Amino acid sequence: MKLSELGEFGCIKRASEIVRQTLPAGVVGIGDDCAVIPIDSAKSLLVTTDMLVENIHFIREKIQPFELGYKSLAVNLSDIAAMGGDPQSAFISIAVPLNIEVEWMDEFYSGLKQLANSFGVYILGGDTTQSKNDIVVNITVLGIAQSHSIKYRSQATVGDCICVTDCIGDSGAGLKLILNNLEVDTDAHYLIQRHHLPRPQIQEGKWLAAKSAVHAMMDVSDGVDSDIQRIMERSSCGAHIELERLPISQELRRVSEKYQWDPLLIAATGGEDYCLLVTVSQDEYEDIASEFEKTFGRKLQKIGTIMEQNFGLQYSLNRKIVQLQSHGYDHFIHTQDTPKNLPPS
Amino acid sequence: MKLSELGEFGCIKRASEIVRQTLPAGVVGIGDDCAVIPIDSAKSLLVTTDMLVENIHFIREKIQPFELGYKSLAVNLSDIAAMGGDPQSAFISIAVPLNIEVEWMDEFYSGLKQLANSFGVYILGGDTTQSKNDIVVNITVLGIAQSHSIKYRSQATVGDCICVTDCIGDSGAGLKLILNNLEVDTDAHYLIQRHHLPRPQIQEGKWLAAKSAVHAMMDVSDGVDSDIQRIMERSSCGAHIELERLPISQELRRVSEKYQWDPLLIAATGGEDYCLLVTVSQDEYEDIASEFEKTFGRKLQKIGTIMEQNFGLQYSLNRKIVQLQSHGYDHFIHTQDTPKNLPPS
Repeated sequence: MKLSELGEFGCIKRASEIVRQTLPAGVVGIGDDCAVIPIDSAKSLLVTTDMLVENIHFIREKIQPFELGYKSLAVNLSDIAAMGGDPQSAFISIAVPLNIEVEWMDEFYSGLKQLANSFGVYILGGDTTQSKNDIVVNITVLGIAQSHSIKYRSQATVGDCICVTDCIGDSGAGLKLILNNLEVDTDAHYLIQRHHLPRPQIQEGKWLAAKSAVHAMMDVSDGVDSDIQRIMERSSCGAHIELERLPISQELRRVSEKYQWDPLLIAATGGEDYCLLVTVSQDEYEDIASEFEKTFGRKLQKIGTIMEQNFGLQYSLNRKIVQLQSHGYDHFIHTQDTPKNLPPS
Repeated sequence: MKLSELGEFGCIKRASEIVRQTLPAGVVGIGDDCAVIPIDSAKSLLVTTDMLVENIHFIREKIQPFELGYKSLAVNLSDIAAMGGDPQSAFISIAVPLNIEVEWMDEFYSGLKQLANSFGVYILGGDTTQSKNDIVVNITVLGIAQSHSIKYRSQATVGDCICVTDCIGDSGAGLKLILNNLEVDTDAHYLIQRHHLPRPQIQEGKWLAAKSAVHAMMDVSDGVDSDIQRIMERSSCGAHIELERLPISQELRRVSEKYQWDPLLIAATGGEDYCLLVTVSQDEYEDIASEFEKTFGRKLQKIGTIMEQNFGLQYSLNRKIVQLQSHGYDHFIHTQDTPKNLPPS
């Protein structure tokens, strides 16, 4: 059997089964945004690693080396944010063909360093090597968290409000603009920047982690549609997403209108937003959302509700159940069914 | 300027300068086998990362996936050994083309797990992703060491005996056999195994780290000829290597005779031995070597002496200065000069 038949998640699951070991108490391995290793009675080490491969995760001609350096680190810092930690140090491996210009490498490392400096992260090592074809970047980031406040994907509780910490879909739209070589006006430039220079939400992650009413947390890397399923698997629950609640930026609205895109579908499936997806106790959502807005000047936007496991994942649009066209950007298939067990909005 | 004009070490140096930051007290970044991050008053975290790229570090058709998994982890454990640490956890990233068989991946992870289990290392995370062309593996390993006994490349002292903890050249000869498609008899099989399944010298590293008479330490990854220059740079010293002292296995001797190879040149330049290169205080070398042999059943073989910086790197063969042909496997260029300041053997 070829890997292509197994798919990415199937492949990770199979590998996890082969390397399964009995871990020491308190140690958390594969399956969340970071691994967790207790250091002492109060603190834990967080570890995350991500590999970016040319022509899979980026196209050399479509991204500046500064942006590639910045983004490679940002996606790892975002994993630390998703557990409520503080990033401390980074280790950078890069494989590059020998015909790359030295100036390209300089810019790559400058992008990395700018983001590292802005979060007080030390670049403590790595590996620089040759490749025959593709540029490949692998970054490992270590962080520190208060052990008792680390948030896992497995902590969602039925009835929780599902929330996101920022507008979603901008990055997905930015990628769509790049791949289709569309005109780069002010709005398009904004969306492309959101794709290339995502801001890891470290402060937001730490703030949310400190609240006991915040249950599950992860970052939006593959898109809400995919990421909420990771929370559902780990928390053995279902989820109802109300599409009209997805926070959409003005820029995404205008660009979507221009090209007749569906901004809600892009927001639900686009991915690489690197904001946080959290579930918050229903009773305390209003208080926490109000405090969040005062602190960060943005809404902690409710987009749905954690349901019993047998509910599965259902989407509604203005209280009518709809289905997302899988792997498609173009349109929803609207159905006439009304969702079962739909909670009051 | 292209990267090819800068070379690997030039490139690492340039990157280090761009990302240079003022580090907190006790933290050691780029420039040794591992980064060092103090955890408490007694212990430090060691971190190392290595990237292996298809057609640069290995040829898919020439290495079994089990061996590739094993070796990818081994080279990182060897870096922990080189600082005198205990490896604790590993993070595995792999990019593979979609036409790879699932069984290939299974074997890759089995090789990793076998080595991890034999050293009590937990595999706590990683990333599995697609690539268009090459297989790329990146592994990060965390270890723990007693802070006061960590050995650095910078601690060599003039007069120290330069030693290796095992026979060298086997791995380089194994690679030569593979690349030239030579007959795989018992001796060749042994050398190829030494290339594919190197044993990280964790116990030896910890034992040596506990001795104050052991000064500098690193692992033999690029070959003694290259690695001793790393110690020379960091310790601001010179080195005299006596080629006739290089420990050569019977297997390498016999295979070299068969193909008229120079085993001493292979031993000095072959690389990927993953034993340890250490410098030991001259006065205490005899005692430590004798204790080492009792403990490990192998010699702590003296191969030369740390000299003043202006001595540079000089080789002698039976007390005549010789020059290694750079990047060549074929022969030495013997010269008639007698080395200046040559110490008594």
